[in-house]
Amino acid sequence: MSNITTRVGLVGFGIVGTGVADLLLNNAELIRAKTGVDIELATVVDLDTERPRSVKLPAGLLTNDLDTLLNDKTIDIGVELVGGTTFAKDLQLRMLAAGKHVVTANKALLAEYGAQLNAAARQAGKCIAFEASCAGGVPIVSALRSGLAANRIDAIYGILNGTCNYILTNMTQKGLDFETALGQAQARGYAEADPTLDIDGSDSAHKLAILAGLAFGCEIELRDIYIEGIDNISIHDIRYGQEMGYVLKLLAIGERNEEGKISLRVAPSFVRSEDSLARVDGPFNAISVFAHAVGHTMYYGRGAGMMPTASAVVADIIEVAMGNSLRVFNGLRVLPRAGTEPLISSIDALRGRFYIRLMARDEPGVFATYGRILGDNRISISGALQHEGCGPDDTVPVVITTHPTEQRHMTAALDELGRLDIVSGRPVCIRIVDIPEDRDA
Amino acid sequence: MSNITTRVGLVGFGIVGTGVADLLLNNAELIRAKTGVDIELATVVDLDTERPRSVKLPAGLLTNDLDTLLNDKTIDIGVELVGGTTFAKDLQLRMLAAGKHVVTANKALLAEYGAQLNAAARQAGKCIAFEASCAGGVPIVSALRSGLAANRIDAIYGILNGTCNYILTNMTQKGLDFETALGQAQARGYAEADPTLDIDGSDSAHKLAILAGLAFGCEIELRDIYIEGIDNISIHDIRYGQEMGYVLKLLAIGERNEEGKISLRVAPSFVRSEDSLARVDGPFNAISVFAHAVGHTMYYGRGAGMMPTASAVVADIIEVAMGNSLRVFNGLRVLPRAGTEPLISSIDALRGRFYIRLMARDEPGVFATYGRILGDNRISISGALQHEGCGPDDTVPVVITTHPTEQRHMTAALDELGRLDIVSGRPVCIRIVDIPEDRDA
Repeated sequence: MSNITTRVGLVGFGIVGTGVADLLLNNAELIRAKTGVDIELATVVDLDTERPRSVKLPAGLLTNDLDTLLNDKTIDIGVELVGGTTFAKDLQLRMLAAGKHVVTANKALLAEYGAQLNAAARQAGKCIAFEASCAGGVPIVSALRSGLAANRIDAIYGILNGTCNYILTNMTQKGLDFETALGQAQARGYAEADPTLDIDGSDSAHKLAILAGLAFGCEIELRDIYIEGIDNISIHDIRYGQEMGYVLKLLAIGERNEEGKISLRVAPSFVRSEDSLARVDGPFNAISVFAHAVGHTMYYGRGAGMMPTASAVVADIIEVAMGNSLRVFNGLRVLPRAGTEPLISSIDALRGRFYIRLMARDEPGVFATYGRILGDNRISISGALQHEGCGPDDTVPVVITTHPTEQRHMTAALDELGRLDIVSGRPVCIRIVDIPEDRDA
Repeated sequence: MSNITTRVGLVGFGIVGTGVADLLLNNAELIRAKTGVDIELATVVDLDTERPRSVKLPAGLLTNDLDTLLNDKTIDIGVELVGGTTFAKDLQLRMLAAGKHVVTANKALLAEYGAQLNAAARQAGKCIAFEASCAGGVPIVSALRSGLAANRIDAIYGILNGTCNYILTNMTQKGLDFETALGQAQARGYAEADPTLDIDGSDSAHKLAILAGLAFGCEIELRDIYIEGIDNISIHDIRYGQEMGYVLKLLAIGERNEEGKISLRVAPSFVRSEDSLARVDGPFNAISVFAHAVGHTMYYGRGAGMMPTASAVVADIIEVAMGNSLRVFNGLRVLPRAGTEPLISSIDALRGRFYIRLMARDEPGVFATYGRILGDNRISISGALQHEGCGPDDTVPVVITTHPTEQRHMTAALDELGRLDIVSGRPVCIRIVDIPEDRDA
């Protein structure tokens, strides 16, 4: 069989771009041997053509002129690795209009403008491949689209942000407070100088929008996703949770509830310490998928970084070069947004268990007051923890876990508890996520 | 886009066949929505057309006449689910000759006759798809072929046999002996009435041959794989291992060593209790893959059973229907066997740590004798465990763990130790597998 030769143009010669160039230039023979595909790096476009990178490009390959890529009819695939949602969007649209397939790792762009970009790709008869946009080198997009294609997906539970997981792991294992753990993550290169998008949950939400769209077959908009970040997490709650058998993770969750509605959220979550996801440490990502035929499957690996992300980008380039991505892309039916609106379940209707912590003056009758307010809101107490001695300001932390209840009842109870004179500050509330166990029947 | 309609003929209406028919008949709409592919179950062939199954086929679909499938030119895909290596081989060859792609879960057949079958498929211009042959519903074949295509694979460590893992989990967690745990596995349907192929390691070796062929890009023959089963495992060794921080698993391992040679083995192995694979319990499978760009990824799920295996079979049917499998199959370059012979490393050259247990009379100087023999064989002791008191026959178990050494040294030392008058029976020897840790750089 003669090899397919595919010419690739890369835009964005930063960290991931450098990794992609490295793999394409230095692993061409390996890729050819494994897949029969010849990939040729035709051009690399970046505004900065001077800064030294860890890969040496052949002379003349690096340019700051985007037209070198757009006007070259022999380039089949444009790889967008510039990030952001303004120039990157324009770039993808221009690459599609110029007759090129697009490979991207840009989760923010796909989460926000996926529908528009997909429509443009369909109109151009091209595809957008985005394995690298979620969980870095872990082939979760492929698993949801192809590996589990025969399944109705019931739930996905993902640790999708390596920065947050690194921070929470260090808080849990070393007892660091949030600021210190964040500083260490920045020093190690696991967090950006401005880590906002990571720690406020937005990045996880972008990825959840993409994965949930594939899993549930409908367009997800960001506003469908309830989002809480980890920036307010106290080491005390991690400790109390541990005492009760839980580990705190930032989980991105998409679930189909009993009425068939889809509930989507990103939030710090207590999971049982024996759950598989509780053991995903440091910068790693993992996604547990529950599907009707296969049951529980889990996918684990590095969710970010130069080479793991480049591994996924190049896997996509190969699949696009083979023509497989286009077929899958064309075959994938995503319900247009108009039809899915009623499918999204509101956070208020979410049913689950809760961990709450109150700081209150150590007075007679305090616990009875808590119990009454929770009971008035139809919330039943499952466990409680109060250590002897006082905290700051002569207040005592009281931790309560609940039986399953609806979010709206909890919200009402928290409001009431927060207004009590004896309670200092706002009560802390963290969801307990009982990830299903797929046990032998 | 108009849908592709693909007609499928199924041979073997047993447990997995019933699951496949169920998915194709009852999930057709879901599959169409997800993939744009229409799959039509055209015929089901089985010798037994009377026995009731848990899925109801449309009238006239079930037949005992194989020619119904072979002579029907409108059937694009033949699914072989009869198992075994005689009739199944003939069947696959006939289906290929009749112009049908083959989808199969038959690991024994592929491990033994893969080269011949692949050649026949290439000659016929068709493909063989076999996601279901390894790790049931876990899309590991797809991950190795496509998801990690840009990577040089350095090692795979797999728990590939759910029966063995169920037995070892029950021995570890409930303290059962092997026979009792096997009986429970049979009672629960996790072990066949004749469990030989599972517990002697053959089934894992079949799967390892397939996965290692994909991972390392060369044809693997079964004789390349060193195989030990779990049938001689004593609960005592599981216990002593636990005391030293290890969990016993039947691991299928393919590693590329420093000289680039490939080492292949299936054997009971002690892994650190904090390793991801140590926590894979019951009938589940998991595969840890170490690759040069992406680092450590892991894939977890049910490795057997009606619906998990059917999930993988139907995923393959969809990929074949789309034309993707044929492209990947054609692109995959597997070094012909002639070229790979020198690539396989012998078990004697394997370097690693060992757990050994000796039953010996409790006499002065015994430990010194052990130490001398090990030292003479260039083996250095890493840890030792001897509980006070005597075992059966007035012998005392002494457990020793070693620093890394070559298998040939250990084999020589074991022979010498076994010949000692004071030692009763053959020494027990179990490899300790130090699965690499992919930590933050």
